[in-house]
Amino acid sequence: MTAGGGFQEQEALSPDELREAWPALSAVERAEGLKLLPRDTAEDLFFTITPREQADLILALPQAEQRSWLRGLAPDDAADLVQEAPTGFRDRLISMLDDQTRKEVTALLAYREDHAGGLMNPRFARLRPEMTVDEAVTYLRRQTRQAVEMTYYAYVLDPSQKLLGVVSFRELMAARGDRRLSEIMKTDVKSVGEDLDQEAVARLFRQTSLVAIPVVDAENRMKGVVTVDDIVEVVSEEATEDIQKLGGSESLGEPYLKIALARMIKKRAGWLAALFLGEMLTATAMGYFEKEIDKAVVLALFVPLIISSGGNSGSQATSLVIRAMALGEVRLRDWFRVIRRELAAGLALGSILGSIGLMRIFIWQGLFSTYGRHWVLVGLTVATSLIGVVTFGTLAGSFLPFILRRLGFDPASASAPFVATLVDVTGLVIYFTTAAAILRGTLL
Amino acid sequence: MTAGGGFQEQEALSPDELREAWPALSAVERAEGLKLLPRDTAEDLFFTITPREQADLILALPQAEQRSWLRGLAPDDAADLVQEAPTGFRDRLISMLDDQTRKEVTALLAYREDHAGGLMNPRFARLRPEMTVDEAVTYLRRQTRQAVEMTYYAYVLDPSQKLLGVVSFRELMAARGDRRLSEIMKTDVKSVGEDLDQEAVARLFRQTSLVAIPVVDAENRMKGVVTVDDIVEVVSEEATEDIQKLGGSESLGEPYLKIALARMIKKRAGWLAALFLGEMLTATAMGYFEKEIDKAVVLALFVPLIISSGGNSGSQATSLVIRAMALGEVRLRDWFRVIRRELAAGLALGSILGSIGLMRIFIWQGLFSTYGRHWVLVGLTVATSLIGVVTFGTLAGSFLPFILRRLGFDPASASAPFVATLVDVTGLVIYFTTAAAILRGTLL
Repeated sequence: MTAGGGFQEQEALSPDELREAWPALSAVERAEGLKLLPRDTAEDLFFTITPREQADLILALPQAEQRSWLRGLAPDDAADLVQEAPTGFRDRLISMLDDQTRKEVTALLAYREDHAGGLMNPRFARLRPEMTVDEAVTYLRRQTRQAVEMTYYAYVLDPSQKLLGVVSFRELMAARGDRRLSEIMKTDVKSVGEDLDQEAVARLFRQTSLVAIPVVDAENRMKGVVTVDDIVEVVSEEATEDIQKLGGSESLGEPYLKIALARMIKKRAGWLAALFLGEMLTATAMGYFEKEIDKAVVLALFVPLIISSGGNSGSQATSLVIRAMALGEVRLRDWFRVIRRELAAGLALGSILGSIGLMRIFIWQGLFSTYGRHWVLVGLTVATSLIGVVTFGTLAGSFLPFILRRLGFDPASASAPFVATLVDVTGLVIYFTTAAAILRGTLL
Repeated sequence: MTAGGGFQEQEALSPDELREAWPALSAVERAEGLKLLPRDTAEDLFFTITPREQADLILALPQAEQRSWLRGLAPDDAADLVQEAPTGFRDRLISMLDDQTRKEVTALLAYREDHAGGLMNPRFARLRPEMTVDEAVTYLRRQTRQAVEMTYYAYVLDPSQKLLGVVSFRELMAARGDRRLSEIMKTDVKSVGEDLDQEAVARLFRQTSLVAIPVVDAENRMKGVVTVDDIVEVVSEEATEDIQKLGGSESLGEPYLKIALARMIKKRAGWLAALFLGEMLTATAMGYFEKEIDKAVVLALFVPLIISSGGNSGSQATSLVIRAMALGEVRLRDWFRVIRRELAAGLALGSILGSIGLMRIFIWQGLFSTYGRHWVLVGLTVATSLIGVVTFGTLAGSFLPFILRRLGFDPASASAPFVATLVDVTGLVIYFTTAAAILRGTLL
């Protein structure tokens, strides 16, 4: 690479090398790299990079070439690209499209990106019910020479574009040529509304193992088709969001190594500061019990152990429930079944940790006589508190996602750190209250 | 539903009602429900339930009907079903298959479920390079009447089954009928090895937006085809596993509401107990600083606040890095870039929390004179410790996934609770060491 940026002409770069170097290259270098590849290899690469990268790349190309790259895209991909381009360039990009695509792209831009309408391709194979199989095959062969997205299905529509039925290409190829589509089509078609959330669309794909699902408006007029290859990206993105939120951060919305450091810190600082403010209640709670700690410093020793056990069990519960909700395994109305299970799980897990804690205190006392005269009572305090704190942590972790969803928030905001913070404060209260009850008259 | 279980014959159950009630029904009730549906609706339902449910259902059917349901499945689905059936029944299920499928299923069972070989369908559209387009179309129409999985592509093989090229049906339909496949096929075919991990297969699908990828052995002989609809499930499963591990639990491997309570508790207790044992080091550390706490109880008040801030920042960092690794955005060799970013992020986040902490102490002191004569020094101790603890938490959370992956473990095992536990112990040491340095001669 020369110092001025850009490749030297004699370097024959393979597509794999270019892809390897891709993240490190500027848009101008990428545009130059692309020019060194044979056109079809360059297209393969172009079609697989993200819409954002496509936009940057096109804007870095000489004006004469921009149009031809843009026109190679299907309308839904072109719409994604326009959406990702810097605001000032969107109109110019749209104006480069051919008339039909421009109309389609403009229509698609009206949909929210995360709705079925924003995912769909408005081009699909359309047939009429009175066609014969042979006519349909001939017609499809002609349609595919234009840029119709070929999926596995062709859709049978009436003159007002209402969806009547579907035939798979397999059925079309296997059927006798003189049968009418109305005889062989499946009329019980699964479809989705234009404004169905992409998470729900993904769930439907998982449940049905279809390759494509038609999108219809309120009058059952077919608007486009969502294909399963777009859903892979949706499922992956939704999981990324959930994992980032669960970890106690805003979702980054960009690849980890690409997001600007300052922006990443901003996205992380918000939640962290909010949690810190909540966690300050622990200092208040500890202040409230300062006299007890002063009298029995031994109690302070177990504070981190007890509150973190509550936090850990809460993390577990909230992660399990949030994921089960995202997968549709658990719905809002299942809350009672979940709470019942988690109550049982919390009591069992608390008892296990309580027993381990008790053993530890007995063994350390035997070996080092660490815990003073009242070590049995201290052990009981710790064990009892653990059962209480772990049960509370488990219940809080499993119930919070329900509350958030009921209030219209994303359940994944009930992040592990959020639950841990809540449980830390409550855990201190449980611990010192238990201590007061068990140790009154002896240590306290 | 009658008390004895099973539906009354007069109830005409719709497929949606049956699906709705599904989770609550026993295998016998499901089998009876299925019988009430028209055959093709019943098949639609049968093909969309999980392999485990299919297995239970088939085993609950009268013997005469088992065979017909089993034979409706593609070989890869039949293999999944056999794998999920109780051990004692597997041979009987295999023996019910027709000869060809039995051979294919037996071959598939030799692959690991989470490898490309375990995901692939061994039936696919095979063509020969010397065929013309017209011959290919005729041949495909015949093949589809047998149970070949029709995907979007047909594969061109030489006589020893080596993969020469691929044509999409779209290309086939658009091409002139007398051209040879060798002229129109694409020879630069992306394929995967039989034992490639399903996570890597999913990543390839995301990168390429292909609908199907061929699976080849070491000699480039084509063994089958993985289709994108199976990948949706893989992506979702892998995310579920990661989220459950990140939450500090073993991955459940079953839907939350379906797993037996005892088994779920077992999967959760292991990690929780291990973390508890680790967390016990906090009691040891606190014991080590008992004298300091005794002298300055005010120090104890901030223990939960400080260690949980480290835990929260560690949760953030580990979640972000683990997800970026799973998506292939961050690779092992990127460790230095990640550490550098996280060092900067940790220092920035620590300074933000430190400033908030300092303000809080100053305000409380102004309002309630809570923190005694040396409140400025206490404030400095807390703020300095926060910077140290948050930076350490961020670094530990981001570096642990690299260590685990390097050692061959799943990076997602660097769960939020795991990092929090590690940071709790270290956080205490950082806090009390800072206190000793700043408060020596005054409070300590």
